[in-house]
Amino acid sequence: MRPDGRAPDQMRPITMERGFAKYAEGSCLIKVGETHVLVTATVEERVPPFLKGTGSGWVTAEYSMLPRSGKQRNQRDAFRGPNGRTMEIQRLVGRALRAVTNLESLGERTVTIDCDALQADGGTRCASITGGCIALYDAFSWMIDKKMIRKMPISEPLAAVSVGIHRNQEVLDLNYEEDSSAATDMNVVMTASGKFVEVQGTAESEPFAAETLGRMLSLAKKGIEELVTLQRQVLGI
Amino acid sequence: MRPDGRAPDQMRPITMERGFAKYAEGSCLIKVGETHVLVTATVEERVPPFLKGTGSGWVTAEYSMLPRSGKQRNQRDAFRGPNGRTMEIQRLVGRALRAVTNLESLGERTVTIDCDALQADGGTRCASITGGCIALYDAFSWMIDKKMIRKMPISEPLAAVSVGIHRNQEVLDLNYEEDSSAATDMNVVMTASGKFVEVQGTAESEPFAAETLGRMLSLAKKGIEELVTLQRQVLGI
Amino acid sequence: MRPDGRAPDQMRPITMERGFAKYAEGSCLIKVGETHVLVTATVEERVPPFLKGTGSGWVTAEYSMLPRSGKQRNQRDAFRGPNGRTMEIQRLVGRALRAVTNLESLGERTVTIDCDALQADGGTRCASITGGCIALYDAFSWMIDKKMIRKMPISEPLAAVSVGIHRNQEVLDLNYEEDSSAATDMNVVMTASGKFVEVQGTAESEPFAAETLGRMLSLAKKGIEELVTLQRQVLGI
Amino acid sequence: MRPDGRAPDQMRPITMERGFAKYAEGSCLIKVGETHVLVTATVEERVPPFLKGTGSGWVTAEYSMLPRSGKQRNQRDAFRGPNGRTMEIQRLVGRALRAVTNLESLGERTVTIDCDALQADGGTRCASITGGCIALYDAFSWMIDKKMIRKMPISEPLAAVSVGIHRNQEVLDLNYEEDSSAATDMNVVMTASGKFVEVQGTAESEPFAAETLGRMLSLAKKGIEELVTLQRQVLGI
Amino acid sequence: MRPDGRAPDQMRPITMERGFAKYAEGSCLIKVGETHVLVTATVEERVPPFLKGTGSGWVTAEYSMLPRSGKQRNQRDAFRGPNGRTMEIQRLVGRALRAVTNLESLGERTVTIDCDALQADGGTRCASITGGCIALYDAFSWMIDKKMIRKMPISEPLAAVSVGIHRNQEVLDLNYEEDSSAATDMNVVMTASGKFVEVQGTAESEPFAAETLGRMLSLAKKGIEELVTLQRQVLGI
Amino acid sequence: MRPDGRAPDQMRPITMERGFAKYAEGSCLIKVGETHVLVTATVEERVPPFLKGTGSGWVTAEYSMLPRSGKQRNQRDAFRGPNGRTMEIQRLVGRALRAVTNLESLGERTVTIDCDALQADGGTRCASITGGCIALYDAFSWMIDKKMIRKMPISEPLAAVSVGIHRNQEVLDLNYEEDSSAATDMNVVMTASGKFVEVQGTAESEPFAAETLGRMLSLAKKGIEELVTLQRQVLGI
Repeated sequence: MRPDGRAPDQMRPITMERGFAKYAEGSCLIKVGETHVLVTATVEERVPPFLKGTGSGWVTAEYSMLPRSGKQRNQRDAFRGPNGRTMEIQRLVGRALRAVTNLESLGERTVTIDCDALQADGGTRCASITGGCIALYDAFSWMIDKKMIRKMPISEPLAAVSVGIHRNQEVLDLNYEEDSSAATDMNVVMTASGKFVEVQGTAESEPFAAETLGRMLSLAKKGIEELVTLQRQVLGI
Repeated sequence: MRPDGRAPDQMRPITMERGFAKYAEGSCLIKVGETHVLVTATVEERVPPFLKGTGSGWVTAEYSMLPRSGKQRNQRDAFRGPNGRTMEIQRLVGRALRAVTNLESLGERTVTIDCDALQADGGTRCASITGGCIALYDAFSWMIDKKMIRKMPISEPLAAVSVGIHRNQEVLDLNYEEDSSAATDMNVVMTASGKFVEVQGTAESEPFAAETLGRMLSLAKKGIEELVTLQRQVLGI
Repeated sequence: MRPDGRAPDQMRPITMERGFAKYAEGSCLIKVGETHVLVTATVEERVPPFLKGTGSGWVTAEYSMLPRSGKQRNQRDAFRGPNGRTMEIQRLVGRALRAVTNLESLGERTVTIDCDALQADGGTRCASITGGCIALYDAFSWMIDKKMIRKMPISEPLAAVSVGIHRNQEVLDLNYEEDSSAATDMNVVMTASGKFVEVQGTAESEPFAAETLGRMLSLAKKGIEELVTLQRQVLGI
Repeated sequence: MRPDGRAPDQMRPITMERGFAKYAEGSCLIKVGETHVLVTATVEERVPPFLKGTGSGWVTAEYSMLPRSGKQRNQRDAFRGPNGRTMEIQRLVGRALRAVTNLESLGERTVTIDCDALQADGGTRCASITGGCIALYDAFSWMIDKKMIRKMPISEPLAAVSVGIHRNQEVLDLNYEEDSSAATDMNVVMTASGKFVEVQGTAESEPFAAETLGRMLSLAKKGIEELVTLQRQVLGI
Repeated sequence: MRPDGRAPDQMRPITMERGFAKYAEGSCLIKVGETHVLVTATVEERVPPFLKGTGSGWVTAEYSMLPRSGKQRNQRDAFRGPNGRTMEIQRLVGRALRAVTNLESLGERTVTIDCDALQADGGTRCASITGGCIALYDAFSWMIDKKMIRKMPISEPLAAVSVGIHRNQEVLDLNYEEDSSAATDMNVVMTASGKFVEVQGTAESEPFAAETLGRMLSLAKKGIEELVTLQRQVLGI
Repeated sequence: MRPDGRAPDQMRPITMERGFAKYAEGSCLIKVGETHVLVTATVEERVPPFLKGTGSGWVTAEYSMLPRSGKQRNQRDAFRGPNGRTMEIQRLVGRALRAVTNLESLGERTVTIDCDALQADGGTRCASITGGCIALYDAFSWMIDKKMIRKMPISEPLAAVSVGIHRNQEVLDLNYEEDSSAATDMNVVMTASGKFVEVQGTAESEPFAAETLGRMLSLAKKGIEELVTLQRQVLGI
């Protein structure tokens, strides 16, 4: 039995609220159990230096946790500078969303995905990617409305979920309590058609065997399918 | 007529939602029109160096705006460092709340008020103070429950509101559109009993006369009274 | 009786020495009792990005205290970065001086007012504004001489003074000893014609009533009048 | 055929030179083709704050590239601060080495693995881990000699290798040219006994199927086995 | 003939005003022509970590130029961080003054010499050392008065002067105009008894011969003798 | 007798390996006893702002020590920012190499000399200059090959050596042990023809006499001559 009574292959309750942020071109408040992330998408007429003159666009992400999103208060990044974990997560979110986006079709524009965890109970990076996909869809729809682009530049939806080994059992969608005592922790980003975009598995306490890897990937696939179904409902696609 | 159709002495619609942040000792999501600020209060067993050994406690505040809280995206403080405006606001919020708190009675503990603007349409600093008062009450109630302190260390509620001169007229509770073209901008922090805690008036385009100051202070008093009435309802005091 | 024997409505002895800094376009060493601030004005052929192409100019200020200007040595801003108080003061000084300056008439030029406290006994921000007005006049005279502008862009002189409540009495022009134990501290920036440019009042220990505010504003008016008289003498206007 | 003429499952020529750094407790200059990383291990009598009083030790890593290690000169981290990639790599190296180390047996000591790429042609993070394992062994041997610990705290050697998809083919140990145009890039850290410590796969241009993942993991296993054989020779274990 | 009409071996007019800073334990406003440096000495009951528990004290220095001390305005160090030149100068000033101070006799105390150039026309680092010696004497006298130490810990006065090659001629005490076009620039710190504490000569445009070095050292010796004579008069020793 | 058995006027064994860094336009691994510095020269088509439009080029240097180059581990500059010593050294290296380079003939290009101490036993700044001269020659040869410039812009080789007073004796080329207990420490940069480029002597514990300075300069001359002979052999000039 898991700490919150779920079955090993059971996700936490999930909701995705589109348009939560009134001023952003796209936004989504995604709740995965007690983990709440506000994701916004901003469209700007600029690209990073390495894309200038190429006609191609860019998708990037930034991530932060409110200082009191968790059980303890954390110092703001503003006062200590962004730390390694923050940098790692925002690189991951940007990379994942770019993998399903046709950047060439955007023109020289950047979409910035801001992921701010209002409340954090494990899995904020996965929620950022899953909710980021919704916000990105909406920002692209706004661009289509404004005649900036002709058609949706996302090839297919994608979502992310964590799997891990907790008390010698493979489990899906770890909460903070499970995550902080897991023997192995893995984040999987997968497309609606079941292809991998990112696989990041880490042995926290002891190395794991190939069969364990296989079972964790199966669990992840199940979770991703549920998330994509929900995304399709929310987006009406 | 004001841009959003309000009378000169009319506040925007206001709601205050206590306990929005599950893990914090106190919290309030305050909405003043389209300005939404999430305020949390965190109790920690530490004090700044200058209070060590005095037996007295401290109340401090930090402030930030989500990068896409407004009509334009702003760079995160994490990447550019906190700027002058941020510093000024968080100093103001902390100072205001300390003015109604009996710090000596707290023991060597710090309460940190985190003010994060999820959406910004003018008046985030005033909303931070008004909502911060609620979060602080709740954090102190939590401390009373934990037997850390005996009685509520807040002498009386306090709230903050902006007044200004827009199109040659004194107006109450300016939104972003009014604020950015106001001739004079003033923030007033006042207690339930009508005493001043902070008066900050700035002539943005041309100096103002003493009578104008008087009329602005009257408007502020009216606004504060409405805010305090609402605070009492929400807190049940 | 005040710590240094002054009457409640008595300013400290004041001198303003024009042209103290040989190389600057304008400068003033202002002494308010034991508070000595060296203010320089620098004219440069550049404007901040938001003014480029508008034909308008800018006035800005920077502020610092020498590390051993006071009774204790303070760390240099160069090693810890500018702090909140520094940011607040330099924003105030710039804002105040812009309020009496016709920025449009300057052309795309910036005048930077550097305020460096050589010795600090309370009231350095007010001395910076009062002395800054002198330095700015001189820099504008230099610009007129160089045919950069046709006429003086300052509408009228302005000055600043602190008032506060010390030992239950409203007092004018607080020194450091009074300032650090004042119940209320207020800085007022006012023009020669008696209009407000900035009013910043803070209840340091307990909230203050409307009548108290009125009495403090009257004291401030008296002090400002003395300062403006002195400015006129020094400038010969 | 690969750019440098290797077979798809062929590693670049590898050498590991123990004791390259005269003063460090352990060190290794590892060369993987034209990628040369100098790794040192430093033993210090201190632990991070969260381990104080626990009796347990720590292994951590830092990573940097000399500014002219590659075909272009890069700015030093010293002048721009450590960037996201640097942070990500040093977190990975530390985590990987901790997974095979019995930290409890170290006493309150920290071993810091410094990885400095003298020359970079792809795969510096993998070389850092593989060479770091050698340096760590030597540092622990030094600790045994000094009677700080009784026996080798490493459970088994571990190594790291990159695999990827280049020109529609799975390839082992990518050089810079392959890496920068690979469709998928994966880093695998594995122990001598064939268990996973870290699996990080990223679809750079398009998502990849589960079978592709399987083939890449097989290639990685082959490469790791060769690396571990070499480590055992060099260490004489 | 030199730009300001001096003979090659002639110093600029020099004054040293003791006690310029009311609150510091020692201070000196030194004017060397148009170069004016305010130097203060602060005594504090602390030492750097490497001296803790040794019973020995420390003398250190910090240096800065007011932004408008020269013909052009320079950005404040507070906003760009201390630069290489600043670091180099303050290390030099501290090192020079320590060379004539018996640090062991100070007890665990630090004297910080703050050198702030109010006006700069070349030679600020030399003026900082020469004036710093005065401020240090006065701070030590204050310590003797307070019974912190028994006798003057300075073995003999020391002073600093610049020499250089300007228009093919060796000259003493270069002003800014000479300094910025000098072929060679040398700073010499020497004791009253004619011993070297620091010799720093730099060929700015072309290397210089041994005989030239000899002639520059002779000029420096002459200048130092004049400075020490003045120091003795000012200090009354 | 010196700690490592050398005669007072004896240099440590020296080797210079050209072309150690495969990708740089010029490079040299210089070993002076146990001090090993890797120097690379990078040619870039850019100049600092003050040279834009002048047609002239620039030579600059950066310096760093690997964290475990010495007997103790030092923190990386990347995490604490470059310190005073680092700044001082890289300014010295750049200045010295510019003194023998015809910058006008380079066109608007910058050559950056990166000096990274792999191992440090005293004298890293001198080794950086001596090895930097080799790397610079090679970078200029590369530019001649590429037809960027017509002829070698270096007027003559130059080298650097330290001299000092250790146990009351003048010694040449101090190692770390000598350097850290030397009474006086001097770095001399001299050209092949015996002219001075830089003379930096510092009395670490007590001031030194003019005769001592003379004897140290003679020792330095002897060392420089040996270094230049070696440079000529290595470069084949």
